[in-house]
Amino acid sequence: MDAITYTPIGIVHSPFTTLEGMPLQTLAAQGARGSVELEPEFQEGLKDLEAFSHIILLTHLHQMSGFALEVTPYLDDRTHGIFATRSPRRPNPLGLSVVRLVAIEGRTLLIEDVDVLDGTPLLDLKPYVPAFDARATDRIGWFADRLDRIHTTRSDRRFTP
Amino acid sequence: MDAITYTPIGIVHSPFTTLEGMPLQTLAAQGARGSVELEPEFQEGLKDLEAFSHIILLTHLHQMSGFALEVTPYLDDRTHGIFATRSPRRPNPLGLSVVRLVAIEGRTLLIEDVDVLDGTPLLDLKPYVPAFDARATDRIGWFADRLDRIHTTRSDRRFTP
Repeated sequence: MDAITYTPIGIVHSPFTTLEGMPLQTLAAQGARGSVELEPEFQEGLKDLEAFSHIILLTHLHQMSGFALEVTPYLDDRTHGIFATRSPRRPNPLGLSVVRLVAIEGRTLLIEDVDVLDGTPLLDLKPYVPAFDARATDRIGWFADRLDRIHTTRSDRRFTP
Repeated sequence: MDAITYTPIGIVHSPFTTLEGMPLQTLAAQGARGSVELEPEFQEGLKDLEAFSHIILLTHLHQMSGFALEVTPYLDDRTHGIFATRSPRRPNPLGLSVVRLVAIEGRTLLIEDVDVLDGTPLLDLKPYVPAFDARATDRIGWFADRLDRIHTTRSDRRFTP
């Protein structure tokens, strides 16, 4: 199929400067502060965003190269299909993070619960609306037995060169 | 910043074949059935996905061309910054839909609550996990007064050529 090209709209800054030792998901990153620096030409697009408590960051996981169809994720000892995991080693390395929006200062967004590597390119930014984005379910596959590990597990280099 | 190139991993099929009259968000598409047809080379990546009730589709909104920084969304009469809306007319036209996973047959995923245009390219597919993706909040900006319109409002052609 035809390739699709995007241009980043900004950069995510975070306390996490290496791929090793990062929190897995925002759930394990609570209180971690960071920021989004939007490119100047997009600042006008932030109008009225300050009235939302959470935003969705769609990021390009720029440190990945190549992908795997089966992976052993950080939280498990067994392999799973890549699309049944949140592993970054995906065919298109898109990251999804729901973070807390603390404040907006000009074109800088102060955010919290950041599980993103410092310097990650931002592709899109959406307001978080539970009626659209939240589902109550306990059918969460292999995560059901493994979520308890998330607060004691950090990333290692298994997915990176 | 450097451009980023992705290749679709599949196609979303839905009952919605024109941009006019589409449901706004999965919330307004309950019961609408569709499917994802994954490219054959990615089928192995689906292993263990059938144990999840919901999946996240990241799509390329291929009918969009150009973007606007302020828009009047379908649900409101006032303008808002594009990043404070879910309007498709975004700098990078990425779509995010949390849909119900009904069944997997080979490389075809049967899905429900589909708010996606038929033929939309799929870029990524993630398992939905409430601990990662759901937040309880009522700070949802201008949507707070407008969500009640979602079941009676459909898309029109304001965002498309």
